[in-house]
Amino acid sequence: MNTKRILRISMVGKHTITILFTSPKTLAESSKWVLPKNQLSFDLIEEWIKKNPEASICTFEGAKAFKDIANFQDYHGLPEFRNAVAEFMGRVRGGRVKFDPNRIVMGGGATGANELLMFCLADPGDAFLIPTPYYPAFDRDLRWRTGIQLLPITCNSSNNFKITVEALEEAYKSATEADINVKGLIITNPSNPLGTILDKDTLKKLVTFVTQKNIHLVCDEIYSATIFRPPGFVSVAEVVQEVDRCNLDLIHIVYSLSKDLGLPGFRVGIVYSYNDQVVSCGRKMSSFGLVSSQTQHLLASMLSDEDFVGRFLGESSKRLAKRYTIFTEGLKQVGISCLNANAGLFFWMDLRPLLKEPTFEAEMALWRGIINDVKLNASPGSSFHCMEPGWFRVCFANMDDLTMETALQRIRTFVDQKKGGEVVPAKNKRWQKNLRLSFSAQIYDDGVMSPHMISSFPDASLASCSSQKLIN
Amino acid sequence: MNTKRILRISMVGKHTITILFTSPKTLAESSKWVLPKNQLSFDLIEEWIKKNPEASICTFEGAKAFKDIANFQDYHGLPEFRNAVAEFMGRVRGGRVKFDPNRIVMGGGATGANELLMFCLADPGDAFLIPTPYYPAFDRDLRWRTGIQLLPITCNSSNNFKITVEALEEAYKSATEADINVKGLIITNPSNPLGTILDKDTLKKLVTFVTQKNIHLVCDEIYSATIFRPPGFVSVAEVVQEVDRCNLDLIHIVYSLSKDLGLPGFRVGIVYSYNDQVVSCGRKMSSFGLVSSQTQHLLASMLSDEDFVGRFLGESSKRLAKRYTIFTEGLKQVGISCLNANAGLFFWMDLRPLLKEPTFEAEMALWRGIINDVKLNASPGSSFHCMEPGWFRVCFANMDDLTMETALQRIRTFVDQKKGGEVVPAKNKRWQKNLRLSFSAQIYDDGVMSPHMISSFPDASLASCSSQKLIN
Repeated sequence: MNTKRILRISMVGKHTITILFTSPKTLAESSKWVLPKNQLSFDLIEEWIKKNPEASICTFEGAKAFKDIANFQDYHGLPEFRNAVAEFMGRVRGGRVKFDPNRIVMGGGATGANELLMFCLADPGDAFLIPTPYYPAFDRDLRWRTGIQLLPITCNSSNNFKITVEALEEAYKSATEADINVKGLIITNPSNPLGTILDKDTLKKLVTFVTQKNIHLVCDEIYSATIFRPPGFVSVAEVVQEVDRCNLDLIHIVYSLSKDLGLPGFRVGIVYSYNDQVVSCGRKMSSFGLVSSQTQHLLASMLSDEDFVGRFLGESSKRLAKRYTIFTEGLKQVGISCLNANAGLFFWMDLRPLLKEPTFEAEMALWRGIINDVKLNASPGSSFHCMEPGWFRVCFANMDDLTMETALQRIRTFVDQKKGGEVVPAKNKRWQKNLRLSFSAQIYDDGVMSPHMISSFPDASLASCSSQKLIN
Repeated sequence: MNTKRILRISMVGKHTITILFTSPKTLAESSKWVLPKNQLSFDLIEEWIKKNPEASICTFEGAKAFKDIANFQDYHGLPEFRNAVAEFMGRVRGGRVKFDPNRIVMGGGATGANELLMFCLADPGDAFLIPTPYYPAFDRDLRWRTGIQLLPITCNSSNNFKITVEALEEAYKSATEADINVKGLIITNPSNPLGTILDKDTLKKLVTFVTQKNIHLVCDEIYSATIFRPPGFVSVAEVVQEVDRCNLDLIHIVYSLSKDLGLPGFRVGIVYSYNDQVVSCGRKMSSFGLVSSQTQHLLASMLSDEDFVGRFLGESSKRLAKRYTIFTEGLKQVGISCLNANAGLFFWMDLRPLLKEPTFEAEMALWRGIINDVKLNASPGSSFHCMEPGWFRVCFANMDDLTMETALQRIRTFVDQKKGGEVVPAKNKRWQKNLRLSFSAQIYDDGVMSPHMISSFPDASLASCSSQKLIN
């Protein structure tokens, strides 16, 4: 037995358990994190599927391609798949930049793609800088099997959690003083959990920083097509063209179709690197997590349908904007403000005024209150390594309109009670028995899943939930 | 850049190139290994697909499940998928053993599943013993990112390459004397490249050996349903029940649907471990290479159709037996003998009588002759770490009947020429221009792919091959 490996798991496990099972009473507390899902536009994909039976090898019309596709395991991927993904990535970026299909490397979801990049770029013990708050599953995805370290760059609310050069320099200096080999910087743009995008000026500063330090820049852009309000998304792919003496060998993009198309089960992860060695090395590594050729074949067709892609992106953006606006306006009415978001499937809610004291203990207490009384599974900022207590990430796209309305109503009641000085458990029987709120039985984060989770099939419909469920 | 990683790649690369490009003149020489594919029974699967439109989420009939399936990313896998795989594994073993669906862990193909096990069981520097000849891609799959070592157990033709306890003990002793930490033993059963199965007595000895040494036993059983002649397959799962004081925590099975169902593109890898810690740890790791939920959903249906499974296994076995018999009988007629095979998609051909001298240089020279003159891409034994020159693996299921007949005819001519003392290049224009032989443009092994390969879509039809292709 690999004791180190098992120990590492146990450590992850203990950490997880410590956090997850603060109170073992409720299912709610089995996880602090929730999977952000986009459930608002599936009807468009289903409609496309029905109209395009030849796109699948599992239809009468498409079965003639079954043999070739089922047999296909070239780690370069189906040429039509790589072409379609490259085209889609360009389109999402307003056509301002072109992607070379020969630089598209497959990975097993963003999870596998991110790990693959770490294996290519760093040795055990090497470090990557990462701005806080950040996606909590990075702690596992990037570190577990590669042995690399993540070093936080502290961001805070004073400037809306923007990354500053000062904070970057400070993190880099601390690391080098501690004799840690800094191999690069990782950012999520659009940001998970903030729901914001990086402005061009900041991106340029980051590219300049990595160029000066001669370290890598990994840009996780898995929400790049999930932009629902201005300003538009700016990719590092655009910025590298404008930065003097930018060393393209240092620039790598991670992409996925899990969020932008809402297909996390299909496990499509992409590494797009400007570095030939990384492309070549990563392509060999992708054998450990290739995308199913059945899935490649379907998506090649779907993404090549320009009309569909246009309609999907437009409609998805419209629906997300509407949902975001109703949700955040509803919160505003009870005095809860949020960081202005324009991307992703979540927003960053400021509950500092509701904390009993400005500590993470108070944040956890508030979180438990929200879980137990509101039945809303918002994710506390501490789980994203946020340095300021009182912030919560709320996913707004993985529920239907009725559920959202119910959520808002409960929040209003909760806040009123809080302001009244006491939290009274929700007594309304209808909440608990008749109007069970939609929540997937899969209580886990974007990849960090509870080891104690019961593997039950997710059922998101309100009607069929048989036990008391949570919103979000 | 991870210089160690890149160096390791370069080393693999150089090794590969050294072997692969012994002579850069022909496409043939871009790889010594060929992907064994089962192309004989696809019609049965296609027929099933057409009759079962509700099995796919990409049909009119099945699209209603699209949202739930596309959203499903639980690393436990769809319960119906795990159940169906466990059931299928039991059926393949004649129902003599039951598999617990809760011990089914997903990996990205056998490639990902094998690596996942090494990550769980060993630390960098640790070693696994492995009988020769063995599947060459293990050198990459098992070692590359995990840092483990593979130590050969020498088997030879004197006893038909059977594993003996003496050879096992010797390999173990050499390792411990060299201060190497032996973590386990890996076997492929049925054997790739031999096409044979392990008899029960040998399996018992192996289980006893690992029990005594307290090391792990990894049984790669990815060809367990590809048995085409008696005797029947015996799984380690049966044997562990009969060995005294067997420590089940040491026993792990790797499975896949790439060979037995002929679906390598679908990337279905399975780890079945009797060790709870490995199941728990491996399940978390499987996030790096989950099976697409689209694929899980389809296969859950297909494997649950007991009539279809029975028909497929029976018919596949019959067709493989017929093909094997015709091919090996044809070879016998020109004096070429093969190791008696009864499983897998290949046989182990004895060309020692055709070697100019009993060296690996002579084996390579003979291989080049076969490639260039016969246009048959048999894989030389040295690529499988065989210790005796003159053996070749021939895949027999990845071509149609006409191609096989042509192959046999060419071999006869080649052997006659060889026996006549001189190898005359094939002059028959019809071979080269009019009857181009079916061979996938994917010239690579079961996972070890040429870094210089052109990524073109495989086209296995005789008619559409536009350049001179190879058989096999």
